[in-house]
Amino acid sequence: MNAQKRLKGRARDFFAKLQDEICAALESLDGAARFREDLWVRDGGGGGRTRVMEDGALFEKAGVNFSEVDGRFDEAFAEKMPVGEGSKFFATGISLVLHPSNPFVPTVHANFRYLERGSGSWFGGGTDLTPYYPNLDDAIHFHRTLKTACDEFDPAFYPRFKQWCDEYFFIKHRNEARGVGGVFFDYLTGEHADEPLEAGDNRTSVDRGIEFIFEFVQGVARAFLPAYAPIAERRRGEPFTERERAFQLIRRGRYVEFNLVYDRGTHFGLQTGGRTESILMSLPPLVRWVYDYHPEAGSREADALEFFRPRDWLNEELNEDE
Amino acid sequence: MNAQKRLKGRARDFFAKLQDEICAALESLDGAARFREDLWVRDGGGGGRTRVMEDGALFEKAGVNFSEVDGRFDEAFAEKMPVGEGSKFFATGISLVLHPSNPFVPTVHANFRYLERGSGSWFGGGTDLTPYYPNLDDAIHFHRTLKTACDEFDPAFYPRFKQWCDEYFFIKHRNEARGVGGVFFDYLTGEHADEPLEAGDNRTSVDRGIEFIFEFVQGVARAFLPAYAPIAERRRGEPFTERERAFQLIRRGRYVEFNLVYDRGTHFGLQTGGRTESILMSLPPLVRWVYDYHPEAGSREADALEFFRPRDWLNEELNEDE
Repeated sequence: MNAQKRLKGRARDFFAKLQDEICAALESLDGAARFREDLWVRDGGGGGRTRVMEDGALFEKAGVNFSEVDGRFDEAFAEKMPVGEGSKFFATGISLVLHPSNPFVPTVHANFRYLERGSGSWFGGGTDLTPYYPNLDDAIHFHRTLKTACDEFDPAFYPRFKQWCDEYFFIKHRNEARGVGGVFFDYLTGEHADEPLEAGDNRTSVDRGIEFIFEFVQGVARAFLPAYAPIAERRRGEPFTERERAFQLIRRGRYVEFNLVYDRGTHFGLQTGGRTESILMSLPPLVRWVYDYHPEAGSREADALEFFRPRDWLNEELNEDE
Repeated sequence: MNAQKRLKGRARDFFAKLQDEICAALESLDGAARFREDLWVRDGGGGGRTRVMEDGALFEKAGVNFSEVDGRFDEAFAEKMPVGEGSKFFATGISLVLHPSNPFVPTVHANFRYLERGSGSWFGGGTDLTPYYPNLDDAIHFHRTLKTACDEFDPAFYPRFKQWCDEYFFIKHRNEARGVGGVFFDYLTGEHADEPLEAGDNRTSVDRGIEFIFEFVQGVARAFLPAYAPIAERRRGEPFTERERAFQLIRRGRYVEFNLVYDRGTHFGLQTGGRTESILMSLPPLVRWVYDYHPEAGSREADALEFFRPRDWLNEELNEDE
């Protein structure tokens, strides 16, 4: 068995186990609903295990998807990829989106994946937080937890992947950030000369290798629950009004717009013949579009729209402490 | 003033006047709400007049947009176009989507447009009906009205543009038609040898010219109200339950998926820097996504999903009459 084959199996095992761990923790966090599980087989090769929970005490809809698929990319689609060669591919990973019912609890997304195209192998993924109402403490907790996980591997990782996240989860046609961001990365092979290295680091990029990247992905993936769960715990009891619920439904529309217009994972899934219901489990349960909506100046809703801009959250913390 | 310049002005005037006529008729049909109007200017050149009506007696949301824009296409975007040359463009047209509140009244879309790229000029557009519950009479009325309008110009038009519509408004990732279709066409220059001609027609394609196409587009555009309004009139009074409303919200999700994932007009608008609120006024006011929704076997909802397949509606009529 060659190294690529071994890594593929270990990545798949890690993601499958991670789905179990995360689902158990989310059921415990919700306290009422349970996940239903759907196993599915993909025509072109492979399949997955989709778990969805609806109408819980905390989560209006929570989807956690594990998949392992292989086959051939559409040629035009494959040509855009900077790693590997040809159209033969393998992909395994976990993807989750949690939509709480209370508008004071943020929506969150995470995705971690391993891909092969021909002889090329890479990891991608990340996690980002989409609050409806601004809470600086929440944004700081989320980012600090991710930064700590990243720093164990390379102090250059967090700033780079935080910025990548801000750029990726930007809704161009709205000129709006999706939320407060997090970290995002793609095509990490561990073998590229342009991979982030700490200033003065004398390891060569090749020395780091894909095993180092796999360790890093496991570290960030394990930081997801500690990054999100405490925020959900401390906000879930906050009472809310119809007005705040209405604002949540409008903001959820932006989530739909991002996922259907821009999201690479969604397009990847739909174009490679993935299971539509598993791919679109990311869409919110109930959404409202109001023509030309603008919150009243000075309202909490207007403040929210100002708050969700790409910002250096961990420096906001320092500014607050001064 | 050259011919292209004159045609551009006449097309714009026709679409602007058509917006007035359609909005007046829709206000009268609704009977309660009025359109609000927003004039907007596009950074790159041109602008538009967006009219939206919300929370009416018949229409939960109705948007009718007129625009006239010019500038330069993104090079990669322009290269995909089979007509004209270079990146300089002009576009004018009308686009409308009506979302009734009663689930027994179909949603409808229409769009008619004139475009120029370099020295090339063409018309495109169409109209398609998206019922929530099946009514063969409605589908037949809609298609018969469109066929009559098309037949005045060429008996080959309706079958060709009906099929084009079935193909265009197909939601690939769902393997579902958006509704019962209608007609759709694009890149009609009147000068292409592959343009539809009646069997035995001895006009050359060049003889028909773009003036003939402009007449045809006016004919189909004027058929929109007689095709849709009688259906809305006869269904608006039907009482409905929460169950039927819930089904409507789920089906509206498919409308969102089509518009954001596939619709050329939406992508054209977002990519050419159009006004986002005017482009996305097509999105339904309230939408629900339920994971892996399947209506109960034998229910009206299950029948509906069977009904909305590309079908030869006018032959269904014959079959019924037999």
